[in-house]
Amino acid sequence: MISSSSQSAIREVLEQFVREELSLENAQIAGAVWAMLDAGGKELRPRITLLAGTAASAEAPKDPVLASYMELIHVATLIHDDVVDNARLRRGKNSTNNTHGNRFSVLAGDYLFSWVFKKVTLGYDNPVPNILSSMLSEICNGEVKQLRASGNLRLQRDQYFEIIGKKTAELFASCAEVGAVVALQRTTGKSGLALRQHPAVEALRTYGWAFGMAFQVRDDLLDVIASEATLGKPAGSDLRERKVTLPLILAMESGDKELHDAVSELFDGEEAGATAQLADIIGQLRRSHIIEAAKDVVKQYELQAQAALRRLNPSNSVAELEALTHALGEYSY
Amino acid sequence: MISSSSQSAIREVLEQFVREELSLENAQIAGAVWAMLDAGGKELRPRITLLAGTAASAEAPKDPVLASYMELIHVATLIHDDVVDNARLRRGKNSTNNTHGNRFSVLAGDYLFSWVFKKVTLGYDNPVPNILSSMLSEICNGEVKQLRASGNLRLQRDQYFEIIGKKTAELFASCAEVGAVVALQRTTGKSGLALRQHPAVEALRTYGWAFGMAFQVRDDLLDVIASEATLGKPAGSDLRERKVTLPLILAMESGDKELHDAVSELFDGEEAGATAQLADIIGQLRRSHIIEAAKDVVKQYELQAQAALRRLNPSNSVAELEALTHALGEYSY
Repeated sequence: MISSSSQSAIREVLEQFVREELSLENAQIAGAVWAMLDAGGKELRPRITLLAGTAASAEAPKDPVLASYMELIHVATLIHDDVVDNARLRRGKNSTNNTHGNRFSVLAGDYLFSWVFKKVTLGYDNPVPNILSSMLSEICNGEVKQLRASGNLRLQRDQYFEIIGKKTAELFASCAEVGAVVALQRTTGKSGLALRQHPAVEALRTYGWAFGMAFQVRDDLLDVIASEATLGKPAGSDLRERKVTLPLILAMESGDKELHDAVSELFDGEEAGATAQLADIIGQLRRSHIIEAAKDVVKQYELQAQAALRRLNPSNSVAELEALTHALGEYSY
Repeated sequence: MISSSSQSAIREVLEQFVREELSLENAQIAGAVWAMLDAGGKELRPRITLLAGTAASAEAPKDPVLASYMELIHVATLIHDDVVDNARLRRGKNSTNNTHGNRFSVLAGDYLFSWVFKKVTLGYDNPVPNILSSMLSEICNGEVKQLRASGNLRLQRDQYFEIIGKKTAELFASCAEVGAVVALQRTTGKSGLALRQHPAVEALRTYGWAFGMAFQVRDDLLDVIASEATLGKPAGSDLRERKVTLPLILAMESGDKELHDAVSELFDGEEAGATAQLADIIGQLRRSHIIEAAKDVVKQYELQAQAALRRLNPSNSVAELEALTHALGEYSY
């Protein structure tokens, strides 16, 4: 149901940016960005930007350039995330920090952020630049909170939802919002911060936010239940990085003392020797009720995203956005 | 000659940002930013922004808020630089990465960048947001080039000037430029990218750029000739980090084979055991002709900065900007 022509338009713009602009300014950074894009990725975020545009205003021209900026911001956050998490793999390939080192990766991420902002401030009026910079500060705020929560087995659901809301849902919400805002700017001639209150913009932002929440809870669940082949990185990465996510929070809520002690020991120990310990914990999580409970949380956010879409005029784009939420309900391990 | 009332206005705004805004959003980040600001620093960049405003348009209201954003962007780049350089000290105190670790520092820098952009995109029209994001991408580009040039004893003067132009002079140039642009926006009612071509804006940008070049060459020279007490970090830090700067380039140009081999050996070796080796190299650099040659380069950029100021109407602000260039000609070791 997702139109492949939009995807190839995004791909084309991304390739052009890297080949014709980034590579002239700094070949090494262009190479690293290209490697990330080339490793695959579903380009969900830019697709949401494109679809939100036509969902908000059917006659608006498609804007694959704006959509591509959203993917590049996402790539920049991934480059920094992998430094922060000391990740070795990303999308099944070596992470940027693994190939080029942390020092280069910090700068390459910074460069990519600022390059996108340079382009956005040239091509788009407010509220777009303001939405994107506010979004980025929320993402970083969430990441810092996540880092602080590292290894904290008393982390509560609400704190977890706050963290993923900032670090993940905010980006999806903004992807949908800027898509809608720019479409309305171009078809109504309006601009400025008041556009954020337009009903279609608000509905699409809510859709993006709920979609992002469902996406992250599902991602955190997959880290427990999926295979390395499906994930493109070893299963249990979150546990290995002492990241406390919903499956673990649900397990701790159930008061299983033995599991608590096993995780506590894993978190206190050195990473290297913990493979057997980790496999044992993952095995216990997989056998418990929490898989269904976490899937249920995903489902609730899916329904919230779908409810937001019903506030819009029906269209192919709205139907495609809804199809994206259905895909979240499918799990391949 | 530099008015201390402007400085305290900048200080007040910075304190207010940290206490009343950052600390509510993320106390840990606010603490780290505060520690950087509190360690002292000459606040040269925001002072140039303020002075450029009144130099461009005598009747323009002072804008310590804009000036403070420039200092915060500078602080954010320092936080990331210290990660990239693995620095232990900054302004005589523990660096952010030393206190909080690299992972936190990457995110705190990102947060501060995006927080400033969020504020700038709310409060200032183009070309300000565009100047600042273009500047940031140039800075990162320069930092990546510097990282690539690490330990390269065949680095040429031109390459060095390109690197410091991007990583340092660009920020000073933009500080002067946005100060001038905003002053003209407020007194003439004009806005948009064409303001960058206004003669006063161009003159002040050139001033800032040449000032920044002089500043960085001097800084690189001080790393060789100044004491640890003056620097707030050990002398020879650049050599220790395999950073090739003008004094070393001048020494290599002179074809001193013995010095070349000594530096080469230092760069190839482990950092820890190299203290005696390093002291010996610094001693040789200090005794050579390069100190005067590097001071002469500083002088040339100083003159270039002063020439740019002569394209402006004389005023107290212009005189203060000139006084700042004179201070670059004074060396306390």
